[in-house]
Amino acid sequence: MPIEIERKFLVEKLPVTELQNAVLGEIEQGYLIQEPDREVRIRGKGVLFFLTEKKGAGLSRDEHEIAINVQMFDALWPMTGGMQLEKARSTFMLDSHQLELDVYHGALKPLMILEAEFLTEEQALAWSPPWFAGSEVTGDKQYKNAQLAKAGKPDNG
Amino acid sequence: MPIEIERKFLVEKLPVTELQNAVLGEIEQGYLIQEPDREVRIRGKGVLFFLTEKKGAGLSRDEHEIAINVQMFDALWPMTGGMQLEKARSTFMLDSHQLELDVYHGALKPLMILEAEFLTEEQALAWSPPWFAGSEVTGDKQYKNAQLAKAGKPDNG
Repeated sequence: MPIEIERKFLVEKLPVTELQNAVLGEIEQGYLIQEPDREVRIRGKGVLFFLTEKKGAGLSRDEHEIAINVQMFDALWPMTGGMQLEKARSTFMLDSHQLELDVYHGALKPLMILEAEFLTEEQALAWSPPWFAGSEVTGDKQYKNAQLAKAGKPDNG
Repeated sequence: MPIEIERKFLVEKLPVTELQNAVLGEIEQGYLIQEPDREVRIRGKGVLFFLTEKKGAGLSRDEHEIAINVQMFDALWPMTGGMQLEKARSTFMLDSHQLELDVYHGALKPLMILEAEFLTEEQALAWSPPWFAGSEVTGDKQYKNAQLAKAGKPDNG
Protein backbone atom coordinates (compact mmCIF):
# COMPACT_ATOMS: atom_id res chain seq x y z
CA MET A 1 0.00 0.00 0.00
CA PRO A 2 1.43 3.41 -0.90
CA ILE A 3 2.56 5.52 2.03
CA GLU A 4 1.63 9.19 2.17
CA ILE A 5 4.29 11.30 3.89
CA GLU A 6 3.20 14.89 4.28
CA ARG A 7 3.60 18.03 6.35
CA LYS A 8 0.81 20.56 6.81
CA PHE A 9 0.92 24.25 7.73
CA LEU A 10 -1.66 26.94 8.33
CA VAL A 11 -1.50 29.83 5.86
CA GLU A 12 -2.60 33.36 6.78
CA LYS A 13 -1.84 35.23 3.58
CA LEU A 14 -2.13 33.99 -0.01
CA PRO A 15 1.30 33.87 -1.68
CA VAL A 16 0.16 35.56 -4.86
CA THR A 17 3.51 35.48 -6.68
CA GLU A 18 4.15 31.81 -5.90
CA LEU A 19 0.65 30.91 -7.13
CA GLN A 20 1.04 32.58 -10.55
CA ASN A 21 1.54 29.27 -12.36
CA ALA A 22 -0.55 27.13 -10.04
CA VAL A 23 -3.10 24.64 -11.35
CA LEU A 24 -6.42 25.37 -9.67
CA GLY A 25 -9.14 22.78 -9.06
CA GLU A 26 -12.30 22.56 -6.97
CA ILE A 27 -12.57 19.57 -4.65
CA GLU A 28 -15.62 18.29 -2.84
CA GLN A 29 -15.19 15.42 -0.44
CA GLY A 30 -17.23 13.54 2.11
CA TYR A 31 -16.44 10.91 4.71
CA LEU A 32 -18.13 7.51 4.71
CA ILE A 33 -16.18 5.82 7.49
CA GLN A 34 -14.28 7.48 10.30
CA GLU A 35 -12.60 5.16 12.76
CA PRO A 36 -9.76 5.99 15.18
CA ASP A 37 -7.14 4.61 12.84
CA ARG A 38 -8.86 4.56 9.46
CA GLU A 39 -11.01 6.70 7.25
CA VAL A 40 -12.77 6.16 3.93
CA ARG A 41 -13.79 9.16 1.88
CA ILE A 42 -15.07 10.00 -1.57
CA ARG A 43 -13.78 12.97 -3.52
CA GLY A 44 -14.98 14.73 -6.64
CA LYS A 45 -12.50 16.76 -8.74
CA GLY A 46 -14.34 18.03 -11.77
CA VAL A 47 -15.16 14.95 -13.85
CA LEU A 48 -12.94 12.65 -11.79
CA PHE A 49 -14.15 10.76 -8.73
CA PHE A 50 -12.23 8.73 -6.17
CA LEU A 51 -12.80 6.53 -3.16
CA THR A 52 -9.84 6.68 -0.79
CA GLU A 53 -8.85 4.79 2.34
CA LYS A 54 -6.27 6.25 4.72
CA LYS A 55 -4.85 4.34 7.66
CA GLY A 56 -2.67 5.50 10.53
CA ALA A 57 -1.89 9.01 11.76
CA GLY A 58 0.89 11.60 11.82
CA LEU A 59 3.65 12.21 9.29
CA SER A 60 3.22 8.92 7.38
CA ARG A 61 -0.11 7.33 6.52
CA ASP A 62 -1.08 4.39 4.36
CA GLU A 63 -3.25 5.63 1.53
CA HIS A 64 -5.01 3.88 -1.30
CA GLU A 65 -7.13 5.61 -3.91
CA ILE A 66 -9.58 3.88 -6.25
CA ALA A 67 -11.02 5.71 -9.27
CA ILE A 68 -14.81 5.39 -9.21
CA ASN A 69 -17.49 6.64 -11.58
CA VAL A 70 -19.99 9.44 -11.08
CA GLN A 71 -22.83 6.95 -10.45
CA MET A 72 -20.94 5.45 -7.51
CA PHE A 73 -20.08 8.91 -6.23
CA ASP A 74 -23.71 10.00 -6.42
CA ALA A 75 -24.92 6.83 -4.67
CA LEU A 76 -22.48 7.30 -1.79
CA TRP A 77 -22.55 11.09 -1.41
CA PRO A 78 -25.84 11.22 0.56
CA MET A 79 -24.22 8.95 3.16
CA THR A 80 -21.58 11.61 3.93
CA GLY A 81 -24.14 14.10 5.31
CA GLY A 82 -22.58 16.24 8.05
CA MET A 83 -19.13 15.03 7.02
CA GLN A 84 -18.52 17.03 3.86
CA LEU A 85 -16.23 19.84 2.83
CA GLU A 86 -15.33 21.84 -0.24
CA LYS A 87 -12.07 23.53 -1.03
CA ALA A 88 -10.14 25.07 -3.90
CA ARG A 89 -6.78 23.41 -4.36
CA SER A 90 -3.84 25.19 -5.98
CA THR A 91 -1.02 22.87 -6.99
CA PHE A 92 2.30 24.53 -7.70
CA MET A 93 6.06 24.01 -7.73
CA LEU A 94 8.40 25.80 -5.35
CA ASP A 95 12.14 25.09 -5.28
CA SER A 96 11.57 21.87 -7.27
CA HIS A 97 9.00 20.71 -4.75
CA GLN A 98 5.29 20.25 -5.41
CA LEU A 99 3.01 21.98 -2.93
CA GLU A 100 -0.75 22.13 -2.50
CA LEU A 101 -2.57 25.08 -1.01
CA ASP A 102 -6.16 24.38 0.01
CA VAL A 103 -8.57 27.29 0.47
CA TYR A 104 -11.63 26.01 2.31
CA HIS A 105 -15.16 27.12 1.49
CA GLY A 106 -18.36 27.33 3.50
CA ALA A 107 -18.24 27.06 7.28
CA LEU A 108 -14.50 26.45 7.17
CA LYS A 109 -13.74 29.85 5.63
CA PRO A 110 -11.18 31.50 5.85
CA LEU A 111 -9.08 28.44 6.63
CA MET A 112 -6.10 27.86 4.31
CA ILE A 113 -3.74 24.91 4.62
CA LEU A 114 -0.48 24.21 2.81
CA GLU A 115 0.47 20.58 2.20
CA ALA A 116 3.84 19.28 1.09
CA GLU A 117 4.32 15.63 0.16
CA PHE A 118 7.58 13.74 0.44
CA LEU A 119 9.07 10.42 -0.58
CA THR A 120 10.79 9.75 2.74
CA GLU A 121 10.41 10.91 6.34
CA GLU A 122 14.04 12.13 6.26
CA GLN A 123 13.21 14.37 3.31
CA ALA A 124 10.07 15.61 5.08
CA LEU A 125 11.94 16.54 8.25
CA ALA A 126 14.80 18.23 6.39
CA TRP A 127 12.48 20.47 4.37
CA SER A 128 12.36 24.21 5.12
CA PRO A 129 8.84 25.57 4.70
CA PRO A 130 8.39 28.78 2.62
CA TRP A 131 7.70 32.25 4.08
CA PHE A 132 3.91 31.95 3.79
CA ALA A 133 3.75 28.75 5.87
CA GLY A 134 2.45 29.56 9.36
CA SER A 135 2.02 27.17 12.28
CA GLU A 136 2.75 23.55 11.47
CA VAL A 137 -0.29 21.30 12.02
CA THR A 138 1.14 17.97 10.78
CA GLY A 139 -0.49 15.21 12.80
CA ASP A 140 -2.80 17.67 14.57
CA LYS A 141 -6.13 15.83 14.69
CA GLN A 142 -8.13 19.07 14.61
CA TYR A 143 -6.79 19.79 11.15
CA LYS A 144 -7.39 16.39 9.61
CA ASN A 145 -9.84 16.86 6.76
CA ALA A 146 -12.19 14.27 8.23
CA GLN A 147 -12.27 16.21 11.50
CA LEU A 148 -12.70 19.56 9.71
CA ALA A 149 -15.61 18.07 7.76
CA LYS A 150 -17.27 16.88 10.96
CA ALA A 151 -16.37 19.42 13.62
CA GLY A 152 -15.68 22.53 11.58
CA LYS A 153 -12.87 25.02 12.00
CA PRO A 154 -10.82 24.70 15.22
CA ASP A 155 -11.30 27.61 17.67
CA ASN A 156 -7.64 28.52 17.43
CA GLY A 157 -7.59 28.26 13.63
CA MET B 1 -0.28 -2.25 -3.65
CA PRO B 2 -0.50 -5.92 -2.66
CA ILE B 3 -0.02 -8.38 -5.49
CA GLU B 4 -2.34 -11.33 -5.80
CA ILE B 5 -0.62 -14.39 -7.28
CA GLU B 6 -3.02 -17.24 -7.84
CA ARG B 7 -3.72 -20.33 -9.91
CA LYS B 8 -7.24 -21.52 -10.72
CA PHE B 9 -8.55 -24.95 -11.69
CA LEU B 10 -11.92 -26.36 -12.60
CA VAL B 11 -13.21 -29.02 -10.20
CA GLU B 12 -15.54 -31.82 -11.29
CA LYS B 13 -15.97 -33.74 -8.05
CA LEU B 14 -16.11 -32.39 -4.50
CA PRO B 15 -13.11 -33.62 -2.47
CA VAL B 16 -15.17 -34.66 0.55
CA THR B 17 -12.29 -35.87 2.71
CA GLU B 18 -10.13 -32.81 2.08
CA LEU B 19 -13.08 -30.54 2.94
CA GLN B 20 -13.75 -32.12 6.35
CA ASN B 21 -12.14 -29.27 8.27
CA ALA B 22 -12.92 -26.52 5.78
CA VAL B 23 -14.37 -23.17 6.85
CA LEU B 24 -17.50 -22.53 4.80
CA GLY B 25 -18.85 -19.08 3.95
CA GLU B 26 -21.39 -17.64 1.53
CA ILE B 27 -20.17 -14.86 -0.75
CA GLU B 28 -22.23 -12.48 -2.85
CA GLN B 29 -20.42 -10.11 -5.14
CA GLY B 30 -21.20 -7.62 -7.84
CA TYR B 31 -19.14 -5.60 -10.29
CA LEU B 32 -19.28 -1.82 -10.40
CA ILE B 33 -16.55 -1.14 -12.92
CA GLN B 34 -15.21 -3.49 -15.54
CA GLU B 35 -12.47 -2.12 -17.76
CA PRO B 36 -9.98 -4.09 -19.88
CA ASP B 37 -7.28 -3.86 -17.24
CA ARG B 38 -9.18 -3.03 -14.07
CA GLU B 39 -12.25 -4.05 -12.15
CA VAL B 40 -13.97 -2.76 -9.03
CA ARG B 41 -16.33 -5.03 -7.15
CA ILE B 42 -18.20 -5.18 -3.88
CA ARG B 43 -18.45 -8.37 -1.87
CA GLY B 44 -20.59 -9.42 1.08
CA LYS B 45 -19.39 -12.23 3.36
CA GLY B 46 -21.91 -12.57 6.17
CA VAL B 47 -21.60 -9.38 8.22
CA LEU B 48 -18.43 -8.23 6.45
CA PHE B 49 -18.43 -6.08 3.32
CA PHE B 50 -15.59 -5.07 1.03
CA LEU B 51 -14.89 -2.91 -1.99
CA THR B 52 -12.01 -4.30 -4.03
CA GLU B 53 -10.02 -3.05 -7.00
CA LYS B 54 -8.04 -5.50 -9.13
CA LYS B 55 -5.65 -4.42 -11.84
CA GLY B 56 -3.86 -6.44 -14.47
CA ALA B 57 -4.46 -9.98 -15.67
CA GLY B 58 -2.99 -13.48 -15.51
CA LEU B 59 -1.01 -15.11 -12.72
CA SER B 60 -0.25 -11.89 -10.79
CA ARG B 61 -2.69 -9.05 -10.26
CA ASP B 62 -2.60 -5.92 -8.15
CA GLU B 63 -5.37 -6.08 -5.61
CA HIS B 64 -6.56 -3.70 -2.95
CA GLU B 65 -9.46 -4.36 -0.62
CA ILE B 66 -11.22 -1.73 1.50
CA ALA B 67 -13.58 -2.74 4.30
CA ILE B 68 -16.89 -0.91 3.84
CA ASN B 69 -20.08 -0.89 5.89
CA VAL B 70 -23.45 -2.43 5.08
CA GLN B 71 -24.92 0.98 4.20
CA MET B 72 -22.29 1.52 1.52
CA PHE B 73 -22.80 -2.03 0.25
CA ASP B 74 -26.55 -1.54 0.03
CA ALA B 75 -26.17 1.80 -1.77
CA LEU B 76 -23.84 0.32 -4.39
CA TRP B 77 -25.41 -3.14 -4.84
CA PRO B 78 -28.23 -1.96 -7.16
CA MET B 79 -25.57 -0.62 -9.52
CA THR B 80 -24.18 -4.12 -10.07
CA GLY B 81 -27.37 -5.39 -11.74
CA GLY B 82 -26.56 -8.05 -14.34
CA MET B 83 -23.04 -8.33 -12.94
CA GLN B 84 -23.63 -10.33 -9.79
CA LEU B 85 -22.81 -13.80 -8.58
CA GLU B 86 -23.14 -15.92 -5.47
CA LYS B 87 -20.95 -18.76 -4.37
CA ALA B 88 -20.15 -20.89 -1.34
CA ARG B 89 -16.46 -20.75 -0.49
CA SER B 90 -14.70 -23.52 1.41
CA THR B 91 -11.30 -22.52 2.77
CA PHE B 92 -9.03 -25.37 3.79
CA MET B 93 -5.42 -26.43 4.25
CA LEU B 94 -3.77 -29.08 2.09
CA ASP B 95 -0.05 -29.92 2.44
CA SER B 96 0.52 -26.70 4.41
CA HIS B 97 -1.08 -24.69 1.66
CA GLN B 98 -4.33 -22.73 1.93
CA LEU B 99 -6.85 -23.45 -0.81
CA GLU B 100 -10.27 -22.07 -1.65
CA LEU B 101 -12.96 -24.07 -3.39
CA ASP B 102 -15.83 -21.99 -4.77
CA VAL B 103 -19.16 -23.67 -5.55
CA TYR B 104 -21.22 -21.31 -7.69
CA HIS B 105 -24.95 -20.84 -7.28
CA GLY B 106 -27.74 -19.78 -9.62
CA ALA B 107 -27.11 -19.69 -13.34
CA LEU B 108 -23.47 -20.66 -12.82
CA LYS B 109 -24.35 -24.03 -11.27
CA PRO B 110 -22.68 -26.60 -11.24
CA LEU B 111 -19.44 -24.67 -11.74
CA MET B 112 -16.74 -25.30 -9.11
CA ILE B 113 -13.36 -23.58 -9.12
CA LEU B 114 -10.31 -24.21 -6.95
CA GLU B 115 -8.04 -21.27 -6.18
CA ALA B 116 -4.57 -21.42 -4.68
CA GLU B 117 -2.74 -18.25 -3.64
CA PHE B 118 1.01 -17.89 -3.54
CA LEU B 119 3.61 -15.42 -2.30
CA THR B 120 5.79 -15.61 -5.40
CA GLU B 121 5.36 -16.60 -9.04
CA GLU B 122 8.13 -19.19 -8.61
CA GLN B 123 6.15 -20.81 -5.80
CA ALA B 124 3.00 -20.72 -7.91
CA LEU B 125 4.64 -22.40 -10.88
CA ALA B 126 6.35 -25.07 -8.77
CA TRP B 127 3.13 -26.12 -7.04
CA SER B 128 1.57 -29.49 -7.87
CA PRO B 129 -2.22 -29.31 -7.84
CA PRO B 130 -4.15 -31.98 -5.89
CA TRP B 131 -6.04 -34.91 -7.47
CA PHE B 132 -9.39 -33.10 -7.60
CA ALA B 133 -8.01 -30.17 -9.62
CA GLY B 134 -9.16 -30.46 -13.24
CA SER B 135 -8.25 -28.19 -16.15
CA GLU B 136 -6.21 -25.15 -15.21
CA VAL B 137 -7.99 -21.87 -16.03
CA THR B 138 -5.46 -19.39 -14.60
CA GLY B 139 -5.60 -16.26 -16.72
CA ASP B 140 -8.53 -17.62 -18.77
CA LYS B 141 -10.76 -14.59 -19.20
CA GLN B 142 -13.91 -16.70 -19.41
CA TYR B 143 -13.37 -17.83 -15.82
CA LYS B 144 -12.69 -14.44 -14.29
CA ASN B 145 -15.39 -13.77 -11.73
CA ALA B 146 -16.31 -10.50 -13.40
CA GLN B 147 -16.83 -12.33 -16.67
CA LEU B 148 -18.77 -15.17 -15.02
CA ALA B 149 -21.01 -12.57 -13.37
CA LYS B 150 -21.68 -10.89 -16.70
CA ALA B 151 -21.65 -13.64 -19.30
CA GLY B 152 -22.49 -16.71 -17.25
CA LYS B 153 -20.92 -20.16 -17.41
CA PRO B 154 -18.59 -20.77 -20.39
CA ASP B 155 -19.97 -23.30 -22.93
CA ASN B 156 -17.03 -25.61 -22.33
CA GLY B 157 -17.28 -25.32 -18.52
